[in-house]
Amino acid sequence: MTSVTELNPRERLLMGPGPSTVPQRVLRAMSAPTLGHLDPQYIEYMDETCQMLRDVFQTSNPLTFPVSGTGMAGMETVIVNLVEPGDEVIVCINGVFGGRMKDNLERSGATVHVVETAWGETFTEEEIEEALKQFPKAKMLGIVHAETSTGALQELSGISDLVHRAGMLLAVDTVTSLGGHPVRVDDWKIDAVYSGTQKCLSCPPGLSPVSFSPLAIEKMEQRKTKVKSWYLDVSMLKNYYTGSGGRAYHHTAPINMVYGLREALRVVLEEGLEARFERHRQMHHLLRSGLEELGLCYIPKHSLHTLNCVAIPEGIDEAAIRSRLLNDFDIEIGGGLGVFAGKAWRIGLMGHSATPRNVETLLAALRECLGK
Amino acid sequence: MTSVTELNPRERLLMGPGPSTVPQRVLRAMSAPTLGHLDPQYIEYMDETCQMLRDVFQTSNPLTFPVSGTGMAGMETVIVNLVEPGDEVIVCINGVFGGRMKDNLERSGATVHVVETAWGETFTEEEIEEALKQFPKAKMLGIVHAETSTGALQELSGISDLVHRAGMLLAVDTVTSLGGHPVRVDDWKIDAVYSGTQKCLSCPPGLSPVSFSPLAIEKMEQRKTKVKSWYLDVSMLKNYYTGSGGRAYHHTAPINMVYGLREALRVVLEEGLEARFERHRQMHHLLRSGLEELGLCYIPKHSLHTLNCVAIPEGIDEAAIRSRLLNDFDIEIGGGLGVFAGKAWRIGLMGHSATPRNVETLLAALRECLGK
Repeated sequence: MTSVTELNPRERLLMGPGPSTVPQRVLRAMSAPTLGHLDPQYIEYMDETCQMLRDVFQTSNPLTFPVSGTGMAGMETVIVNLVEPGDEVIVCINGVFGGRMKDNLERSGATVHVVETAWGETFTEEEIEEALKQFPKAKMLGIVHAETSTGALQELSGISDLVHRAGMLLAVDTVTSLGGHPVRVDDWKIDAVYSGTQKCLSCPPGLSPVSFSPLAIEKMEQRKTKVKSWYLDVSMLKNYYTGSGGRAYHHTAPINMVYGLREALRVVLEEGLEARFERHRQMHHLLRSGLEELGLCYIPKHSLHTLNCVAIPEGIDEAAIRSRLLNDFDIEIGGGLGVFAGKAWRIGLMGHSATPRNVETLLAALRECLGK
Repeated sequence: MTSVTELNPRERLLMGPGPSTVPQRVLRAMSAPTLGHLDPQYIEYMDETCQMLRDVFQTSNPLTFPVSGTGMAGMETVIVNLVEPGDEVIVCINGVFGGRMKDNLERSGATVHVVETAWGETFTEEEIEEALKQFPKAKMLGIVHAETSTGALQELSGISDLVHRAGMLLAVDTVTSLGGHPVRVDDWKIDAVYSGTQKCLSCPPGLSPVSFSPLAIEKMEQRKTKVKSWYLDVSMLKNYYTGSGGRAYHHTAPINMVYGLREALRVVLEEGLEARFERHRQMHHLLRSGLEELGLCYIPKHSLHTLNCVAIPEGIDEAAIRSRLLNDFDIEIGGGLGVFAGKAWRIGLMGHSATPRNVETLLAALRECLGK
């Protein structure tokens, strides 16, 4: 038998691509006594959590809930419920997560049409319009709002009308934007959206908030085949989360994770969405001017406030610097992913991590490591 | 915007079909500072967790890890990775969870052969042997060790040889047995097994421990098609969990849930597996004699120690009694599920909940509610 010592994790400053640093009150909430998943008190907590998710997604969609898995389970929930074998779909790829959507869509048996642009770039309305014309039979267009692998922010407000005029659904990845950048699900007429808890909501990883429009539900109800995933089948999940069909038991919800998310959402709404977006904007600019002073260049033209992707200068051992930041300063930043592996740093300013103290601390440590 | 009050869950005694009451030290571990999912310290915690899972599953299978979802995600992981469209499989149904396996298998495109026995009954070696003869082309046989809907314990030790002699894989649901009854994965030559954290391990729900034998891995490597689920694709997950391929990032693991599981496993191994099984046995007999004194009859012939399923006596409003137990005594027990809805109570004695104090408390409260 193994002898394993007591848990004693270091208190890292989490400034990578997620998770972000979690507020004490969220961690405390997670350690509250576990309730049963059908306990009326828990059902009330869950309803409150779903309502706060609606507030944060800026939607009145009844079908808004946290999927019992991390962010990628949310992506899969959207795809397996909206796509059937043989369906055509369009996916926009400008980084790792668009590519994952494609992989996921193919596994669901869809015929996937890819629209691509360079990593770090975003899509124009003209490019989207062109794709819609080229693949008029597609059922859905999938796009990433905040590409975690490149730090690029995709403008969405103009795209939705084009997609709907073409008779398609709009599915959006907001893993790295929700709670840090505006995600206006109703205004932007997004049909299916997913996110993660461990980024700008500053809750530990473990849940994936999703929301579906009435149009998306209509499409789901017209399915000819069963959803391939039992665990993620929204036709059953909605009974538990919205109370239609009498809170039928589907699976045992991750109770204490929901406690954490509930508290994290309270923190978000106490600050206020607009104030929170403004804080992320300010911290981004503070960090940006500091990084540029150190000679570092941002890769994307349209940078996220929440994730700052900069090119590694010539002659720098990027992994050694990340190790030193972690080991000497207890600060985590991210390396590059995919095409950018070894070529970029990804510095997160998400939720509770996005403070002047953290920005200045990171800049000071980075200056030290770069010998500037 | 919603105004939601501070979280303050009641301290229920969880004696239903799960979750069970979680020890303070496990809750405390969950509230430790969040680390990044690629932080060397977290990787070490994860490796320790996987090793302790091997100890609890009594296996040396390298591919043993907690799936990032609740118990049913574990079932789905086993099925989507081992089954391809067109495969034949045998599933043994004697309650809700065998039925779920069937549903899951069908969604994976398998041709499912069902062997059934009455709810509350278990399968004999002869019945299994008969099924193996009848469906010789099947690739796998799926069976439930501890049927949470009926409280029946399935004997497994004799079945494995039969299944392997027929050239099939053995997949077993141990959601309600792991940590309460012996689950000897290596001795019983189980090829694929899944469980949940919220039952006899007394960790909150949110993770699903799984283990795969070398033979199961061989079969997975021979697949002709991609696994339908990206999130649950073991060919990618194994790089992260076993270090083959260099800890490649797949999804963001639920860090704080893994903290909780790690601590829960420490609790289990400190007590010792055999001592723990013996405690569950003793508590079952203590409860059983008390329930029988109250005139309640066990439904299954081979009852689990961890879940006690008794028939509702004539003329009793079972839901009213469960409500009273919850509201007046803060004790949760479970109602019947599926065929047994309204006809049975399910009383859990799992992990931290299985103590003489809890048994006596429940019996006293039940006596009061039944007016005895």
